[in-house]
Amino acid sequence: MKTLDLNCDMGEGFGAWKMGDDKALLDYVTSANIACGFHAGDPGTIHRTVKLALQKGVAVGAHPSLPDLLGFGRRRMNVSATEAYDMVLFQIGAVAGFATACGGRLAHVKPHGALYNMAAKDRPLAQAIAQAVKDFDPRLVLFGLSGSELVRAGEQAGLKTASEVFADRTYQPDGSLTPRTQADAIIHDGEASIVQVKRMIEEGKVKSLGGPDVAVRADTLCIHGDEPNAVDFAKRIRRALDAEGVRVAAIAV
Amino acid sequence: MKTLDLNCDMGEGFGAWKMGDDKALLDYVTSANIACGFHAGDPGTIHRTVKLALQKGVAVGAHPSLPDLLGFGRRRMNVSATEAYDMVLFQIGAVAGFATACGGRLAHVKPHGALYNMAAKDRPLAQAIAQAVKDFDPRLVLFGLSGSELVRAGEQAGLKTASEVFADRTYQPDGSLTPRTQADAIIHDGEASIVQVKRMIEEGKVKSLGGPDVAVRADTLCIHGDEPNAVDFAKRIRRALDAEGVRVAAIAV
Amino acid sequence: MKTLDLNCDMGEGFGAWKMGDDKALLDYVTSANIACGFHAGDPGTIHRTVKLALQKGVAVGAHPSLPDLLGFGRRRMNVSATEAYDMVLFQIGAVAGFATACGGRLAHVKPHGALYNMAAKDRPLAQAIAQAVKDFDPRLVLFGLSGSELVRAGEQAGLKTASEVFADRTYQPDGSLTPRTQADAIIHDGEASIVQVKRMIEEGKVKSLGGPDVAVRADTLCIHGDEPNAVDFAKRIRRALDAEGVRVAAIAV
Amino acid sequence: MKTLDLNCDMGEGFGAWKMGDDKALLDYVTSANIACGFHAGDPGTIHRTVKLALQKGVAVGAHPSLPDLLGFGRRRMNVSATEAYDMVLFQIGAVAGFATACGGRLAHVKPHGALYNMAAKDRPLAQAIAQAVKDFDPRLVLFGLSGSELVRAGEQAGLKTASEVFADRTYQPDGSLTPRTQADAIIHDGEASIVQVKRMIEEGKVKSLGGPDVAVRADTLCIHGDEPNAVDFAKRIRRALDAEGVRVAAIAV
Repeated sequence: MKTLDLNCDMGEGFGAWKMGDDKALLDYVTSANIACGFHAGDPGTIHRTVKLALQKGVAVGAHPSLPDLLGFGRRRMNVSATEAYDMVLFQIGAVAGFATACGGRLAHVKPHGALYNMAAKDRPLAQAIAQAVKDFDPRLVLFGLSGSELVRAGEQAGLKTASEVFADRTYQPDGSLTPRTQADAIIHDGEASIVQVKRMIEEGKVKSLGGPDVAVRADTLCIHGDEPNAVDFAKRIRRALDAEGVRVAAIAV
Repeated sequence: MKTLDLNCDMGEGFGAWKMGDDKALLDYVTSANIACGFHAGDPGTIHRTVKLALQKGVAVGAHPSLPDLLGFGRRRMNVSATEAYDMVLFQIGAVAGFATACGGRLAHVKPHGALYNMAAKDRPLAQAIAQAVKDFDPRLVLFGLSGSELVRAGEQAGLKTASEVFADRTYQPDGSLTPRTQADAIIHDGEASIVQVKRMIEEGKVKSLGGPDVAVRADTLCIHGDEPNAVDFAKRIRRALDAEGVRVAAIAV
Repeated sequence: MKTLDLNCDMGEGFGAWKMGDDKALLDYVTSANIACGFHAGDPGTIHRTVKLALQKGVAVGAHPSLPDLLGFGRRRMNVSATEAYDMVLFQIGAVAGFATACGGRLAHVKPHGALYNMAAKDRPLAQAIAQAVKDFDPRLVLFGLSGSELVRAGEQAGLKTASEVFADRTYQPDGSLTPRTQADAIIHDGEASIVQVKRMIEEGKVKSLGGPDVAVRADTLCIHGDEPNAVDFAKRIRRALDAEGVRVAAIAV
Repeated sequence: MKTLDLNCDMGEGFGAWKMGDDKALLDYVTSANIACGFHAGDPGTIHRTVKLALQKGVAVGAHPSLPDLLGFGRRRMNVSATEAYDMVLFQIGAVAGFATACGGRLAHVKPHGALYNMAAKDRPLAQAIAQAVKDFDPRLVLFGLSGSELVRAGEQAGLKTASEVFADRTYQPDGSLTPRTQADAIIHDGEASIVQVKRMIEEGKVKSLGGPDVAVRADTLCIHGDEPNAVDFAKRIRRALDAEGVRVAAIAV
């Protein structure tokens, strides 16, 4: 029986500002990637989100980012591998402390935004991130784009990895995500999203924009919590997966 | 044989800006309080400082602060006990990750600046800090001003505590430190500082400004690394302690 | 004919985070206080908000704060008068540049949150703020709580001032606002708010919590844009003011 | 008679951290580029530096940067032209307010670090910066690398521009500066620096690394205030310029 993890970025408010309905989404996802303060998230928000996720039995992960609160971590920055190692280690530690204090433990790490995309193609950056994860705790699962340098670096470091696929993002012929700055980056039609997911799970393939099929491995599916209809979509995708006989569960450690 | 720990705030640069000669001071102190990014310190600086401290056999601690980079954590802020708990837990976790990655472990926590002074007198704030330390790792030693609410809260939480005394700061009749905004807050004369330390160790007393003796307990002595002659003073105090037959060592855990 | 200005804090998003429906509120208020980046607001948000306000003929003001993005400028901080002068001048200049670039000019300054409340009672702080406003542009109108040290300091500095009253906040017997941390700080009933406003305009009085009437001067009324029903309330208060024959207009310069 | 402006980045401390001996350098330079808070600089530091520069008759300019305090504005970030316009306008306004309050006026704008280098080659970015400068005050002088898109954009916007050359940086065959990450980016020999400057002024040429001469226009020379021997070098370059009969003065407006 095929298993799929559903992950969602969470705790992406900051102080007085809120984002996403984390509480509702936690009923449908199996892994929560908690913002660590660099693109979003603050100590209070992290605490509340970690606690809620653990209460609902959802795996808690760190979601480290480039240091860019104003740009929500979506702007590429020219950081060195050493800087990436240090910033990832800092952020993992910060979130892990809350998991510990809440009686749980950190389960995974998924880089955010520009850092995620950069680490998909930049090998030294990917290796630095994988090393930081390993040096903090070699039992952590490293999440990366299916087929990316980040997944490769995680495997080479001896980490358990989770290859991630996207329901509502279009793919480029090289397997990368279409940048959000392009008009056709997002799949707005929920049905089309579900069709894309099914094919990724069953055939291990996704159609790229104006190009050939791309091979993907679907260990975990990203649910975008900041979309207006995120909760509704999460419900629908779970129903669709049930109907296909796909088991939804966090990555086994 | 009497034992005294010598602690020093370290890693208090930020990015391109440096502060203090941490490397030289690590030859003389036995506990390093590492800035955690809220008043100073950034992931790279934290990493280098933690690594260096562990290499020299110096105990590594977290030095959490109010979120005030511009004010170097020295301006009181009206934070709630819940906010204090969360910010301390965040900062402890961030620094502890580097200790782990460097093959060591975090040994203690000492709040910084205004947070330290506020926690000396404000019981709910002190209890929140002690609870955050305990929830992260109950083996951590909590450093606080001798006679303070923070030391009391640590004891009540079942933590090992270290009562701190100051060589170069004057005391108020209630046992608090004279605020830095006052002209007579700092003892600039090295000899007078050493005399003050000796009396604190041997008699458990310090003369307060224009007032009576105050009882102090001297488990750990603070060396101010940002003073121009910090290294020289550290050497002299060690020599003086040797002469008195006082053993200098980190707090035993 | 009595005249009243309606002012509203605006541009209080930050990067990806939004707050309040500024666009809709600009149809009802006559002065917009633009967040300057210290408690909220970023260059892009400031630009869009200033442009929109000028297009709608609404007076543009700066809304400087303590440097506390995480706490939304609502936490008191122990800043010196010199620090307050410098932070206010920095923020006024930053927002004024957008007004100039959009073909308008800055009309007023209203401190935000904790800085506003501190300046209501702390004379040296109030004087520092008034001086910063005057040194930047002596034609600016300084907004402060009716009866406050800030209004007094503005008058003594030779600035035009606007005494502010609140529809949805309760007052203390000394004329200060009940702190938001108290349960009865906010008047949730729209009708009661309108009654309070009418009396402040017509009688120059407001009932304080469990105490006597307090004298107030109502030059400008604060509309809280972050309340869920802010737009609706703005409509209702305008209708009520029309019915009373009160003219709604920005402070004449 | 040939005239050359000597400019220096100043006010590049932040809170408790200092950088460079601004006071001593102000005796030798004719234009001060004041950090605006995005890579360095805070309201207090800006105030003190602007005041000192005006007292010594040195032209005051804004030195806007990418928002990267931790990276000192030296890391490239993927910002849009709109974001660049807004961030530059914000920073110019903030510094200009201090010049006004001190009885002076802002004279020029020089982008900092990565923003400067990006604007040397990226036309839309250069145009956005030039437009922000013009929209704030069309009398401002825009400083840019000699031969850069930034100087071109300034000219096309109708701004007065100053073409900048470097004494202690090596040039690439395309006229750009060798990136600081390369070993041969900096000329450490003071004599060689002075020879390079003389030739740039007299022949309008500089030798590029392993390549042909590059044509340069020398309106203003950058003095790096953060170099350990900056004051000594400033003295020597002034003496050398005197000996050559070059007049040292700020850009005439």
